[in-house]
Amino acid sequence: MSMINAFDAAAATGISERDRALIERRERLLGPAYRLFYAHPVHLVRGEGVWLYDADGSAYLDVYNNVASVGHCHPHVVAALSKQAATLNTHTRYLTDGILDYAERLLALLPQELAHVMFTCTGSEANDLAYRAAKAFTGGTGVIVTELAYHGVTIAISEMSPSLGDGIKLAPHVRTVPAPDAYRGSGDVGEVFASHVRAAIADMKAHGIKPAALLVDTIFSSDGVLADPAGFLAPAAAAIREAGGLMIADEVQPGFGRTGAGMWGFARHGIVPDIVTMGKPMGNGHPMAAMVARPEILDSFGKRTRYFNTFGGNPVSCAVGMAVLDVIENESLIDNARDVGAYLRDGLRGLANMHEIIGDIRGAGLFVGVELVTDRATKNPATAATAKLVNGLREKRILISAAGPHANVLKIRPPLVFSRENADQFLASIDEVLTGLGQP
Amino acid sequence: MSMINAFDAAAATGISERDRALIERRERLLGPAYRLFYAHPVHLVRGEGVWLYDADGSAYLDVYNNVASVGHCHPHVVAALSKQAATLNTHTRYLTDGILDYAERLLALLPQELAHVMFTCTGSEANDLAYRAAKAFTGGTGVIVTELAYHGVTIAISEMSPSLGDGIKLAPHVRTVPAPDAYRGSGDVGEVFASHVRAAIADMKAHGIKPAALLVDTIFSSDGVLADPAGFLAPAAAAIREAGGLMIADEVQPGFGRTGAGMWGFARHGIVPDIVTMGKPMGNGHPMAAMVARPEILDSFGKRTRYFNTFGGNPVSCAVGMAVLDVIENESLIDNARDVGAYLRDGLRGLANMHEIIGDIRGAGLFVGVELVTDRATKNPATAATAKLVNGLREKRILISAAGPHANVLKIRPPLVFSRENADQFLASIDEVLTGLGQP
Repeated sequence: MSMINAFDAAAATGISERDRALIERRERLLGPAYRLFYAHPVHLVRGEGVWLYDADGSAYLDVYNNVASVGHCHPHVVAALSKQAATLNTHTRYLTDGILDYAERLLALLPQELAHVMFTCTGSEANDLAYRAAKAFTGGTGVIVTELAYHGVTIAISEMSPSLGDGIKLAPHVRTVPAPDAYRGSGDVGEVFASHVRAAIADMKAHGIKPAALLVDTIFSSDGVLADPAGFLAPAAAAIREAGGLMIADEVQPGFGRTGAGMWGFARHGIVPDIVTMGKPMGNGHPMAAMVARPEILDSFGKRTRYFNTFGGNPVSCAVGMAVLDVIENESLIDNARDVGAYLRDGLRGLANMHEIIGDIRGAGLFVGVELVTDRATKNPATAATAKLVNGLREKRILISAAGPHANVLKIRPPLVFSRENADQFLASIDEVLTGLGQP
Repeated sequence: MSMINAFDAAAATGISERDRALIERRERLLGPAYRLFYAHPVHLVRGEGVWLYDADGSAYLDVYNNVASVGHCHPHVVAALSKQAATLNTHTRYLTDGILDYAERLLALLPQELAHVMFTCTGSEANDLAYRAAKAFTGGTGVIVTELAYHGVTIAISEMSPSLGDGIKLAPHVRTVPAPDAYRGSGDVGEVFASHVRAAIADMKAHGIKPAALLVDTIFSSDGVLADPAGFLAPAAAAIREAGGLMIADEVQPGFGRTGAGMWGFARHGIVPDIVTMGKPMGNGHPMAAMVARPEILDSFGKRTRYFNTFGGNPVSCAVGMAVLDVIENESLIDNARDVGAYLRDGLRGLANMHEIIGDIRGAGLFVGVELVTDRATKNPATAATAKLVNGLREKRILISAAGPHANVLKIRPPLVFSRENADQFLASIDEVLTGLGQP
C-alpha cells in the first residue's frame, strides 16, 4: 500500500494534454481520496495476458498486478462470466447449483479441518466477517497484526491496518507486532515473531482485553514481502491458540498459487489456520472473495446471527471462480509460479552482483521482494532511489510498485502466466535503470 | 430482512429428493449462517426479464428481486459486461476512461451539490465509507437509524442495522427512532419523525456523543415500506443538520428509478442529502455500489486518508453501470415503474374490498407494501397469515417476501420491466391464495 510513487501534480513529468485533462476530470468527479500511480500516470485501455496497453497502443509488461492472476482478460474466464451472466444471476436465498459446485471444489483445495466457506465480494468484507466470527467464537475482541499490515478498508478492518497511515487510528483492542523480518531482524525468525505475539497478548491481558485472533497476510506483502524461512509462522500460531485466540491467515494476496508451493501461503509454514480469507485473484478481477473456517467456529456465529451478502456467492461469481481454478490447473500455473519465480530470483541475484543497491532478494514463487539499500552493511533504506527505479521502469513500460516500512522494497507480483522471457525483459530493464541511477 | 418465511428443515414441505440433497450439501459446505427462502425452497437455473426458471423448467414470476432491476440477464447489460471483461479490467490507480464517463453520467442524475462519487463493490461498503466520511467531516460518532433499519453487514454497519436481530448488539453511539409510519402512527408523519430524531440527538448529547448522521433508507424497506406522505423526511433532515450532523440517504433499495418519481427515493421528499449511498440495482446483479457526497465532506476525509477499493470502480463495473442506465432510459423504466406501480396499487385496493385482511396499501412506483392485519380496527398484525400467503404464492410460482416489525407487510419490488399483465397475474394469485386462507 506504499504510495511513495504516487502521482503528485506539482512533481508531475511528461504528461500529455489529454492525460492532464483526464487527471483534472478525475479530481473533479472522484474527489481527493483517490491516488494515481507514478509521477507520470499510465492511461490504460486494454489488457491481455501479462500485457497492458495504453491509449497510444504501447504495451506495458505487468510485473505488479496480482488481481488478474491468470492473465488479463483470460478468454476462459471471460467466457464463463459471459455465459453465466446471460443465464442466471441471483442470490443465496434460493437454491442454485453453482455455489455448491464451487464451494466443494474450493474446500477440496484446503486442509480438511477448514470445511465451511462463506462468500463475500471483497477481501475487506472477508476479513470483516472473519473478525466477527472470531469475536463470536472466542468471546474476545483483541487482534494482533503486524506493524505495517493491510487487511482492508471497512471501518473495523481499516482500524487494524496500520499501513493506511496516520489518517486512521487503530482500534483500542488492536496490537501491532514487528513483522518477521529475516533480513533486518536477528535470531530465529519464528521464535522472535512468536515472542512479540506473546508480548502483545500479555499487554492485552493487562488492559483487560481478551484475545480473539492473530491476523496475518501469510507473505507480509505491505510489510515488505517476508517469506523466509518457510515455517516461521508456526510458533506464533501456537502462541495465539494457547491464549484462546484464533489464527487467521489472510490469503488475499498470497493465495491461489502465487507462492508456487501449493494454493496457499500458509502451506509453506506447515500450519492449518482456524480461518482463511481470500479475495483479489479469486475471480481474476471479478469482485469476489471468501472466508473459510473450521465448522465449530461458524457454529456459534451462525446460531447467533444470519449472514446475507447480496452479491456474495452469486452464480456469476461462482462460475468465474470455477474458471479461474480451471486455468490454474490447465496451465499448471502453480508450477509456473515456482519455476519462473526461482528463475527470476536467480536473475535478481545476478543483478545484485553488479548493483550494490540490491540489499536483499526474497519471496516465494511469483511473489518476490527486492530490498534496496544505500549501504549493505548498515542496510540504510534507499527510499528515494526505489521511487526513481519504479518511475524509471514505468518509462520503460514496466509496471511495478514498492512496499515496506521505508517503501524501499520492490513488490513483484506479476500475473502467474509470467514467462522466463518476461523475466528476462524485466531483469534487463532493472539493470538499465539502476545503471542509469549510478551509485546509491 | 424478515425471515419469517425462511426454510426450516423441521417444517419443510413438498421437497424433492434432489432438492433435499442440495440443501444438505449446502449446510455441509456453507455452514449454519445461510438461510433459504420458503418452507419449500426454490431451485433456480435460469432468469429472463421478470421470470426465473427452476430445474424442471417451471417459470416463476419475480415480484421480489430488486437487484436484477432492469430484468434478469438483460442482453444489453450482459453484452456490455462481456465486451469490457474481454478488453480491460484493472483498478483505479491507473487512468481509465470508463470510470470517468460513468461518474459523470451518474453525477448528472443527482442534485448538483452532490459532486463527487466514490466506488465500492457493495452497499455495505458504501454505507461503511459514508459513515467514515461523516465521522471525519463532523468530528462526531453518533448515528440515528430507524428501529428496524437494515444498512449492511460490515461490523460497523451491522451495529447500526437493528433488523439483523438480537445476535448483533447496536454500537453505543447508535440511537434508534420509530420509523415514519402513516398507517400506525398519529399526527403529522414528518413532524413526529423529526421529533423522534431531535429526542435521539438530545439523548446522544446527554451521553457526550456528538451526532455524525441520520442514516435512512428513503423508502424504509425493512421497516415495512413507508413512503407516504411524500415530503415527510424534510423536517428530520433539518433537525440532524441543526445538530451538526449529516443527512445520509441510503438509496441501495429505492434508487435507480424504482419509486417511479425520478431516480432517487429522496427526491420525493424534496430534500438534498449530504451523502447518498447506492448499490443493489446499480449493476443489475454485478457487484458494484457507490457513495456520492458534497465535495466539502470528502475534502477533510481525502486529506486525512486515501481510499482504495481493489475492485471498486473497475472498468467492467463501470461499463455495466453505464448499460444499466442505458436500459433505464431506453425502456422508459422510471415511467413504467410509476404507471405499473399505480396500476398495481389500484388493483390491490380492489382486492382490499374483498379481503378484510388487507389493512394498508402503500409505496411509490414499483416499491409497494401491503400490510396484513387480523382486524382493521385494532390493526393487529396478521403475521402467520402473511407467511402462509408468501408460501402460498410460492406454490403458485410467484416469488415475494415480507418485511416490517411483525413480518406482516408484503414487500413488492419486481424488476422494473414488470408489466400490467404481470401485475394482473400477481393480483389474481393473491386473490386465490387469500380466498383459500379464509377469514384472518
